[in-house]
Amino acid sequence: MTYEKEKQAFLNFLQEQNYYKQNLQLLQWDSHTQIPIQGYEQRAEVIGYFSEKLHQLQSSEQMKYYSDYFIDQSKDALLQNLAYECQNIYDSATKIPSSLAKAYAMQISKAEAAWEVARNESNYAQFKPALQKMIQLTQAKADCLGDGKNRYDALLQQWEPGMTTQTLDQLFPKLRSALIDLLAKVNHSQIIVDEQLITQHFPSAQQKAICLQLLTNIGFDHTAGRLDTSEHPFTFGLHARDVRITTRYDETDFRQSIFGVLHEGGHALYEQSFGKDIQNTPLAEASSMGLHESQALLWENWIGRSEEFWSANEALFKKHAPASFQTITANELYTALHRVQPSLIRVDADEITYSLHIMLRYEIEKLLLNDELSVDDLPAVWNEKTQAYLGITPPNDRDGVLQDIHWASGYFGYFPTYTLGFMYAAQIFQTLEREIDIRSLIANNQLTTIHDWLTPRLYQSGKSKLPLQLLEELTNETLRPEYLINYLTEKYQTIYQFK
Amino acid sequence: MTYEKEKQAFLNFLQEQNYYKQNLQLLQWDSHTQIPIQGYEQRAEVIGYFSEKLHQLQSSEQMKYYSDYFIDQSKDALLQNLAYECQNIYDSATKIPSSLAKAYAMQISKAEAAWEVARNESNYAQFKPALQKMIQLTQAKADCLGDGKNRYDALLQQWEPGMTTQTLDQLFPKLRSALIDLLAKVNHSQIIVDEQLITQHFPSAQQKAICLQLLTNIGFDHTAGRLDTSEHPFTFGLHARDVRITTRYDETDFRQSIFGVLHEGGHALYEQSFGKDIQNTPLAEASSMGLHESQALLWENWIGRSEEFWSANEALFKKHAPASFQTITANELYTALHRVQPSLIRVDADEITYSLHIMLRYEIEKLLLNDELSVDDLPAVWNEKTQAYLGITPPNDRDGVLQDIHWASGYFGYFPTYTLGFMYAAQIFQTLEREIDIRSLIANNQLTTIHDWLTPRLYQSGKSKLPLQLLEELTNETLRPEYLINYLTEKYQTIYQFK
Repeated sequence: MTYEKEKQAFLNFLQEQNYYKQNLQLLQWDSHTQIPIQGYEQRAEVIGYFSEKLHQLQSSEQMKYYSDYFIDQSKDALLQNLAYECQNIYDSATKIPSSLAKAYAMQISKAEAAWEVARNESNYAQFKPALQKMIQLTQAKADCLGDGKNRYDALLQQWEPGMTTQTLDQLFPKLRSALIDLLAKVNHSQIIVDEQLITQHFPSAQQKAICLQLLTNIGFDHTAGRLDTSEHPFTFGLHARDVRITTRYDETDFRQSIFGVLHEGGHALYEQSFGKDIQNTPLAEASSMGLHESQALLWENWIGRSEEFWSANEALFKKHAPASFQTITANELYTALHRVQPSLIRVDADEITYSLHIMLRYEIEKLLLNDELSVDDLPAVWNEKTQAYLGITPPNDRDGVLQDIHWASGYFGYFPTYTLGFMYAAQIFQTLEREIDIRSLIANNQLTTIHDWLTPRLYQSGKSKLPLQLLEELTNETLRPEYLINYLTEKYQTIYQFK
Repeated sequence: MTYEKEKQAFLNFLQEQNYYKQNLQLLQWDSHTQIPIQGYEQRAEVIGYFSEKLHQLQSSEQMKYYSDYFIDQSKDALLQNLAYECQNIYDSATKIPSSLAKAYAMQISKAEAAWEVARNESNYAQFKPALQKMIQLTQAKADCLGDGKNRYDALLQQWEPGMTTQTLDQLFPKLRSALIDLLAKVNHSQIIVDEQLITQHFPSAQQKAICLQLLTNIGFDHTAGRLDTSEHPFTFGLHARDVRITTRYDETDFRQSIFGVLHEGGHALYEQSFGKDIQNTPLAEASSMGLHESQALLWENWIGRSEEFWSANEALFKKHAPASFQTITANELYTALHRVQPSLIRVDADEITYSLHIMLRYEIEKLLLNDELSVDDLPAVWNEKTQAYLGITPPNDRDGVLQDIHWASGYFGYFPTYTLGFMYAAQIFQTLEREIDIRSLIANNQLTTIHDWLTPRLYQSGKSKLPLQLLEELTNETLRPEYLINYLTEKYQTIYQFK
């Protein structure tokens, strides 16, 4: 067969996999937003069936043949990149024996159910046996993926290609001590940030009007995506021209919807901006979960929680806000959005304490996977570390070790990507300040300029480049925690008036 | 292999086909209600891909093997019915050569596009060549399906198993002359039914509140289905526990939503009520399109447009209706809902004239398929028949021969099922009057009793029985047009005061 024919056959084969991917995304999206309750049982079977079909394609001899062929013979960079990505996909799909993959999937179902009961009853003992088994299976999985080398690195690769524990172990301690230091300064400040201003009643429909306008402002293409409601906000990209996000509405806390939409909107901009050449191929994914998160955080925190943003959007906000909000100034709102308060629950954490939650989990995950911590001792270690980093101790396991579903779902090695997202965002924002004076753009509501600038430099290449490579090309530097530390220090020393 | 093992393998094979069916239903539903506009292009490909996959299973050697095996060996009625249904599916999937199937699918796309332009411009010439080609391909398709015998019968079988043109040609003329006679009496009546009462402003949200309550009242299970909005109302049953209907809201005509929801709700009750034994098998479909339509019409017209219904629901209606509706009596509403007026557009037609539109199409379809009418002469014949049956002549082709998309979409032989639905509904309603005093049940809002009575007798067997067999078992009679004629005569002679 000629090269051109092989190429066409390869692209057709990838298109077929893409149909399954789109389809699975729709099935999942529908399950989270639309499905009637009695539809779940059949839906789980349908998702299982099509996931298996996709896995068969990903682990097929054909997949191996094409990736080998085009790694060797490709005449352009796109084919080369596709071939390497297919090799990764093939390896992930085949390195784990199907008996282990099946046992793992089944154990996730059991562990998630056990976790749900345990958390509701705040009874860790209910979850412990399932967690023990999950750890064992995750160790086995990591050994397959990493060929017996560093287990944590093997798991981390799934979400953050190219990242290593060695790098994290250099970055995190520095960040941790800076954050603990910052937190102490905030704690000692005489300033009290009052959130009462923003917990006044605000009807959902009016919040939604603001959310939709903000999405338009940041460059979200409503003809290539939609906004829905779900309990846990998420982004599902069926493909670049159909990206669906959700938010939730709390009528006594507009932050849930507005910052939720900016966060998911950031994810969505990434998904809508993949280059035409990679759309509907396996390269049409974010370079890594950390980089994906960095864009959500860039829009949510760096842009959405800036003084400039609230000045620029005061009129929009007040147009839709109830009467009780009309006398609040943009600056009062800005300040009220920045209360720092060590809390037990990660998902409620502020910008300073969030990463402390992550580092605690990262350290514990490593201990568990290396058999240096037993599930018996886990809650005690969790509580000790929470006290050490945040200065508070969970009164029960529900608000401690049982708060996240991640381990029950097999997401070991995922947590670090959240803090990597913070560091990436800080470093990218600094570049945006230097290159396009981003603060003026925000102040003038010229937000699409930011999107337009990031698209060719960050979004459009998708998975063609590794995250650290992209970051270095964009910012001319390797990843450094100082940008995050400086951003937080400057912001909060102004608000909390410390030196 | 033992019988039990074969049986299990057969059921697994059918389950696999069911996953594709559920999936295609979801893809279609989403395309009609949720998808962002830029998502269509990929969606068409995805639907095409999975339709082809399903077709491969339906036309596989395995399908033939199982249907032959269980037609011969089945030890229970369910397996027997499944085997026969699979034989039908296999035959439909294999009788048409794949070259013809492909040409047909492609021509549908072209013809629909041409029809859209032609209708917008009211220019039949734009559609004529595509229609000509559709007719030729439909003839070829009918010859494959019917093994060269009666073409129209072959097409009709797809929607109405067991029905023949011979039967239709006995039933329709009798009905037609009765309807024309009735229409003349209405036209000569001095009574003027004024619709102004019901075209007052009625906000969508309040219409929706009524619609949701009516769905509950008729027995629609909201935990196994949902109501959405779309331009053209429809019902998509993913499976019996996930049945999705839509309606449309017109703020100056509440009939669109309320009767739309009763109509689709009738379809949905059928889909939600398939027996547990046949759920998720190929038998979990309505016995025929005519019988499916009969249930939509039973709830929309026989129940929803009855005097008893409007008395029973006056309070519900007024609870949500604007002030201007509050002084209208239930009887005034009932009367206003029954204006008879020959009109050019089928979908706007009343109970009396609707079937005249159908019979006109049926007669023309037969002529076209038998080469007894050319596409050149079609508009003239359309207009002549409209004048003959309805007493009016379309002033242009948009309101005449170009009004329906059916022929462009390859739905030749489908139209008769609408009028069969009217006749089935009338005959079933007469049985319901006799057996469970349905008018009292409606008057007392005990509508779920009707659903409960129909479920074991009509709905639960799905496609296990032919429509005429079901009708005869239910009503103890073969299909007779007199029930429809009597129903319409009694109703309208009271309203229009003729003898």
